[in-house]
Amino acid sequence: MRTLASPTFADVQAAAVRLEGHAHRTPVLRSRTVDAATGAQFFFKCENFQRMGAFKFRGAFNALSCFDAAQRQAGVMAFSSGNHAQAIALAAQMLGIPATILMPSDAPAMKVAATRGYGGEVVLYDRYTEDREVLSQKLAQARGLTLIPPYDHPHVIAGQGTAVKELLEEAGPLDALFVCLGGGGLLSGSALSARALAPGCKLYGVEPEAGNDGQQSFRAGRIVHIETPRTIADGAQTQHLGEHTFAIIRREVDDIHTASDAELVEAMRFFAERMKMLVEPTGCLGFAAARRLAPQLAGQRVGVVVSGGNVDLQRFAQLLA
Amino acid sequence: MRTLASPTFADVQAAAVRLEGHAHRTPVLRSRTVDAATGAQFFFKCENFQRMGAFKFRGAFNALSCFDAAQRQAGVMAFSSGNHAQAIALAAQMLGIPATILMPSDAPAMKVAATRGYGGEVVLYDRYTEDREVLSQKLAQARGLTLIPPYDHPHVIAGQGTAVKELLEEAGPLDALFVCLGGGGLLSGSALSARALAPGCKLYGVEPEAGNDGQQSFRAGRIVHIETPRTIADGAQTQHLGEHTFAIIRREVDDIHTASDAELVEAMRFFAERMKMLVEPTGCLGFAAARRLAPQLAGQRVGVVVSGGNVDLQRFAQLLA
Repeated sequence: MRTLASPTFADVQAAAVRLEGHAHRTPVLRSRTVDAATGAQFFFKCENFQRMGAFKFRGAFNALSCFDAAQRQAGVMAFSSGNHAQAIALAAQMLGIPATILMPSDAPAMKVAATRGYGGEVVLYDRYTEDREVLSQKLAQARGLTLIPPYDHPHVIAGQGTAVKELLEEAGPLDALFVCLGGGGLLSGSALSARALAPGCKLYGVEPEAGNDGQQSFRAGRIVHIETPRTIADGAQTQHLGEHTFAIIRREVDDIHTASDAELVEAMRFFAERMKMLVEPTGCLGFAAARRLAPQLAGQRVGVVVSGGNVDLQRFAQLLA
Repeated sequence: MRTLASPTFADVQAAAVRLEGHAHRTPVLRSRTVDAATGAQFFFKCENFQRMGAFKFRGAFNALSCFDAAQRQAGVMAFSSGNHAQAIALAAQMLGIPATILMPSDAPAMKVAATRGYGGEVVLYDRYTEDREVLSQKLAQARGLTLIPPYDHPHVIAGQGTAVKELLEEAGPLDALFVCLGGGGLLSGSALSARALAPGCKLYGVEPEAGNDGQQSFRAGRIVHIETPRTIADGAQTQHLGEHTFAIIRREVDDIHTASDAELVEAMRFFAERMKMLVEPTGCLGFAAARRLAPQLAGQRVGVVVSGGNVDLQRFAQLLA
């Protein structure tokens, strides 16, 4: 994996061609209420309406599309807190590739069920005591599978970059762009598209307050590792950025912000009440930070990537109760 | 009002011009899950993402845009179970027209609050004991206001027709189209667009099982009146079709189906879990019927108008519990 070169915008463009007709071109929604409250113009790229409910489909499909014949026949292995698992399972099913998925035993039931529903074989592990990277490498080696990590892979990064490419093509140039940050696949891919299509746009990553390893890494200039953070943003419970993702983030991103779980819940409520859409906690990171920074954004054209909508309805109701 | 001619597709086209830049061009979403389960291709026109959360904005804005100077100054009066109220209040605010809204005292709290939030003066009445049409006519006369009824008005019908006009422009020709039916504004407007743009398309209205006055009227060939039906589809608790809407429905619609409250809840759950969107019970009518009729729809291109998303989150959680 390390032998693949760092991706560029040309790789995002190639990914967009591969994804055409397979991924949804998700809508960019506006909200009069948000614009009136902030004095800015907000553009929400709604990847919660993407296939399997999150942007992760883009990177997974792009990565599997690059497999050679032997890799396709042997199959793919993935580890994931949820959305990457479903994405690999679905993309593999569409491309006729067998998929084995390592998932944490406390992943949302909906995500485990959906992964199995897409035909993936699910292997569970304890996210607080076991190392998923070691486990999955062992399993992949034993079975001859190609491991596709959830974020630190050039083909994954290039695929994720297609969401912001579409956003900028539809919304036109933006002054600021907020993207959620877990392992950095979406943020680094977004950076490739933003720098190519909207060079003057400020680009911000947003992490859960309890898991700000990305912010620490950005400031320290090296990848900082943390314990698995406890936050409702289950898609951003990563312990560290990747080598590929950090290299791009360090070079291209303007700053990294955080959002508290309480702010994520408020953003979830806003999305549901006023924009009529279900957004998972991780998908609320970008908007939660943008709301807090609104006084600095007045008069600007602001993009927000809403990354996914995979939240159990029961959990959703609990969080908003 | 009765002196206005029955609307035609030309009126829908004129309404589309008036709405440009004011109404959202809502997305048409697809669902791989639905298509795989039914063997059909479904196209969901998502008016839950329309301004104020429902298609009603289209008809209201079109009707108020046709006011002359004296009418604008005196103000508008509307009666509504909720979405029309919000639509008139918002459109009036945008056009600088004072709005007085008569709403049932058991309307969802969110709808009453939103109407007030848009600057409308809300007058409450008891939907089970008082006649809103008589009440609102009295109020309008006393205050010199122009009454815009929720559905039986050519400008309202023409405005509502723009949603299906957009759907057909984006999705291309359809074989069948399912539209929810309360008083018939959306269905009759949809009929004008469907007959002009997709002449071969079967057009179905869908009512709550408990309030099938439209089905009865369609079969009897005259407008049948019923008691206010008790159903979770609060936007379709109408007692009878209108003269304008019935004339068009009788002439252009292929059949009228019904959906039970239980089927509406199942459709709501599907929309939330798989399509990540909040749809109010009335907005589920079209899909609920289409799901039941799926065996007859295999191989077809099927349109569904998702009419609105204005459901209290607490109520939403209760219904899905």
